[in-house]
Amino acid sequence: MTRSTLFLVAALVSSATALWPQPQSISTGSNALKISPSFHITLSGIKNAPKDLLDAISETKDNIANDKLERLVVGRGAVDAEAVAKSAELKELVVSLEHDGKIRSISEEAVDAIENRVEGYSLTVPEDGSAATLKANSTLGLYRGLTTFQQLWYFWDGKVYLVDAPVEIQDSPKYPYRGLMLDTARNYFPVEDIKRTLDAMSLVKINTFHWHVVDSQSFPLQVPGFMELSEKGAYSPSSVYTPKDVKDIVAYAAARGIDVIAEIDTPGHTSVIAKAFPEHIACNEKTPWATYANEPPAGQLRLASDATVKFTANLIEAASSLFLSKFFSTGGDEVKQSCYQDDEETQQQLNASGKTVETALNDFMKATHEALHKNGKTAVVWQEMVLEHKIELRNDTVIFVWISSTDVKAVAEAGFRLVHAASDYFYLDCGGGGWVGDFPSGNSWCDPFKTWQKAYSFDPTANLTESESKLVLGGQQLLWTEQSGPQNLDSIVWPRAASSAEVFWSGIGGSISQALPRLHELGFRLNQRGVRAIHLQPLWCALRPGVCDLTA
Amino acid sequence: MTRSTLFLVAALVSSATALWPQPQSISTGSNALKISPSFHITLSGIKNAPKDLLDAISETKDNIANDKLERLVVGRGAVDAEAVAKSAELKELVVSLEHDGKIRSISEEAVDAIENRVEGYSLTVPEDGSAATLKANSTLGLYRGLTTFQQLWYFWDGKVYLVDAPVEIQDSPKYPYRGLMLDTARNYFPVEDIKRTLDAMSLVKINTFHWHVVDSQSFPLQVPGFMELSEKGAYSPSSVYTPKDVKDIVAYAAARGIDVIAEIDTPGHTSVIAKAFPEHIACNEKTPWATYANEPPAGQLRLASDATVKFTANLIEAASSLFLSKFFSTGGDEVKQSCYQDDEETQQQLNASGKTVETALNDFMKATHEALHKNGKTAVVWQEMVLEHKIELRNDTVIFVWISSTDVKAVAEAGFRLVHAASDYFYLDCGGGGWVGDFPSGNSWCDPFKTWQKAYSFDPTANLTESESKLVLGGQQLLWTEQSGPQNLDSIVWPRAASSAEVFWSGIGGSISQALPRLHELGFRLNQRGVRAIHLQPLWCALRPGVCDLTA
Repeated sequence: MTRSTLFLVAALVSSATALWPQPQSISTGSNALKISPSFHITLSGIKNAPKDLLDAISETKDNIANDKLERLVVGRGAVDAEAVAKSAELKELVVSLEHDGKIRSISEEAVDAIENRVEGYSLTVPEDGSAATLKANSTLGLYRGLTTFQQLWYFWDGKVYLVDAPVEIQDSPKYPYRGLMLDTARNYFPVEDIKRTLDAMSLVKINTFHWHVVDSQSFPLQVPGFMELSEKGAYSPSSVYTPKDVKDIVAYAAARGIDVIAEIDTPGHTSVIAKAFPEHIACNEKTPWATYANEPPAGQLRLASDATVKFTANLIEAASSLFLSKFFSTGGDEVKQSCYQDDEETQQQLNASGKTVETALNDFMKATHEALHKNGKTAVVWQEMVLEHKIELRNDTVIFVWISSTDVKAVAEAGFRLVHAASDYFYLDCGGGGWVGDFPSGNSWCDPFKTWQKAYSFDPTANLTESESKLVLGGQQLLWTEQSGPQNLDSIVWPRAASSAEVFWSGIGGSISQALPRLHELGFRLNQRGVRAIHLQPLWCALRPGVCDLTA
Repeated sequence: MTRSTLFLVAALVSSATALWPQPQSISTGSNALKISPSFHITLSGIKNAPKDLLDAISETKDNIANDKLERLVVGRGAVDAEAVAKSAELKELVVSLEHDGKIRSISEEAVDAIENRVEGYSLTVPEDGSAATLKANSTLGLYRGLTTFQQLWYFWDGKVYLVDAPVEIQDSPKYPYRGLMLDTARNYFPVEDIKRTLDAMSLVKINTFHWHVVDSQSFPLQVPGFMELSEKGAYSPSSVYTPKDVKDIVAYAAARGIDVIAEIDTPGHTSVIAKAFPEHIACNEKTPWATYANEPPAGQLRLASDATVKFTANLIEAASSLFLSKFFSTGGDEVKQSCYQDDEETQQQLNASGKTVETALNDFMKATHEALHKNGKTAVVWQEMVLEHKIELRNDTVIFVWISSTDVKAVAEAGFRLVHAASDYFYLDCGGGGWVGDFPSGNSWCDPFKTWQKAYSFDPTANLTESESKLVLGGQQLLWTEQSGPQNLDSIVWPRAASSAEVFWSGIGGSISQALPRLHELGFRLNQRGVRAIHLQPLWCALRPGVCDLTA
């Protein structure tokens, strides 16, 4: 038996252990080990285990039995058959919680993970068939460890096995926020698509679903007290998320270690509100749209109207109450002055109050954030609120940096916690052609396509001082859905969105060449679980790590 | 009731008739008409109707009942409800064949359509409920007309209806070849994926499936007499196309008016043959691969070896016999001199015979094409055979132009019939990032993404004289599958591949802005039929033709 460090493993492109994200520390041997028919997972010293932990254990057993992932080597599992035939059998994984006091559920910890770092775990799988062990000081840490445990196994000829026992892993995330953003307003996604996406996210230890739930084009979210918005603004009576759907999604996510940060973008991106409340929207569907908005239809909340400010604060409060998360985004991107300049009501309101658009915007944001704060929530906003409008934000506000990664420095200098979400690295929708009509030669504004390699090469603290670096909560990839729907959700997101998941879990420094074989395996495993992740290379290459490298 | 010409219809962006491809001539009225519960399709004066025609009629009735496509307008079908309630009912479509003599099946005509133009039809749908009529002088023409008839109908509240009766259509294709190419060698596609693609192709009147069935990476085609090739070269024992599968696919395609032109690329792109017949392959898997091939793995047929020439001719003959088509492609792209320069056997064989690589290549191609000719087939090759290697091709050889649309002129000047397949307009795989490993900054060689607008704007006879223009058989979009598989087949192909289908059926001149609403409807109808065509815009835009145009 040989042992290897993280670095030795990384250098062996044909390593059999294909975890994603890469653990902070891993050592592996070279012995086969197979799952016993009597394999079971036992809890040690955990009284009254939370239901979601028991469910996760049950799901772990199911996944190990059902993944049936053939190892990506020439000859597939057949090359391992002999070693597996004479290997020891693993009969037990012992799961223990190293924590005194009240045991919280995975779900409780998931909505707290960004500010309380409780995702670490340690995992050992001996080569001799004696019990494997998983230890953590939180149920969320145990969940992460169970996910890792699931990724250790291959299938061939009725056997579930690995070939590099013993395995020892010590793991915890470098950054507390690893996210994925989905826009469900440009086109609608049924609940089942979101749940499938959450399953995939949990496999790569993404812990935040940033849900851009409504926008100018449609308002699928049913908000109690504001039902007219979805009644008149959803694409159809069935293209909605009911409070029950939201509860279902939030619970499904939380049980998988994922917090759901919803967003109601304001004061821009709100044309659809005019269908139910025309009095609150300036420049609604005004043309030419390009004068008044970055995309059709135009329309912004009348930020200088007291009634509109109150309406918005109440809406944000009611919407945020649907979610367990401690965070909620009020957007704040792409506010166009031209919309207000040409809106008579807004001009009158500004004149009457002696405000400018900028001071009105400041008051507007303060009001909605105050409503959030009273509701026990922390505000999240897009970068313009800090960099362009210099809004007086609460110190705890979290900033999404989207326009460019070069804007990160300025946000950090302003002293705010931030999430990397920059279009030049993390936008999953770029490169698919311009979507506005009558634009024959148009490609996407954020061309080219952002490859997994591009996202993977991101340095989260580039150009930041040590103290600025501490403001980086993590990062995420994002799917804006002007040209997406359930049809291409899986194929445009996976496995690409796993890139940032590893950057913000494992930290910078991964080699593209050494990551690719692991990413292939992740993609194949996702497919085994019904997520239609695309191939990154011909199978011929996937079976031969490194052989299709540029200079091979 | 008003009548409008083609040009008037085209100008009405909210026209209810959303056919794809656009017929050569169409006039529509403004009356609603609904399908009667007793609707039936009758054959007039067709004795002993071929089974595939009866099947097409049955499928037409099924599709009309099952498509359930809601019209893409604000308010959807509800806006038509009143007109539909009081409309006439269509009880019958009368299908007649204006043709004396022996009736051929759709399938027989499909494998003949490129050289015998038999796809025209005329269709009338009166507004008063009297019988609709479909006439053609071939069963293939009737099939095209049935497809058009299916596209006329919308669904709302249990009713299948249209809102622009009477409809009169005269239609026939501008070009005899409208194709789609799929590569099933870089990654494998199960038969069901190919059939689903054929269904989608038939809906837009694509009549040729160019099947790039094998390549360097895998050999999924079972060829009688050469079974070792797939036994050792397929990705797995189940990743194959058996002769029964091929027969099934060819028959399925033919019944839908589609000819299957298969390709065994030679002498390059053949590394996989070495797994069974190493003696026939030069520079097999030699590294660095970039020296010997355009992509890994390297490997080319030993074109100067008499045994290899004979082997290849026999293989081509056997493979071509699996297909009904009169055409078969022997490839001929990307032959690398360096592979032969470094191959001792080839150098010896060249020396012994007094040939150069170029003269050997000429003899090699003549031998394989002679085998095809004896087998009653016409050869198809990639452009290099004419432009780079000046091979002495038979006059009837068809040339695929792939490298650039600027190469079309030279192929036409050489006097060969040609098919547009240029990477700068028609490659569906461009823009998705470079797929070779360890290439962090790499995007695809044929960046950017080729939008549907790009393909749609193609002029098939640009820069050609009138006589050169007659050599243009048509064109096709192509999917090379280094980064594709069943996971993203539909989403990367549809609705984009419909662009060339319309260019080569309807002819150049379509407006991007006026095409988009029809393309939206096509995409939505494809989804209703289980083909996961992507959204091209937010639904908000799809419901409002023109409103999301760049300058709207």
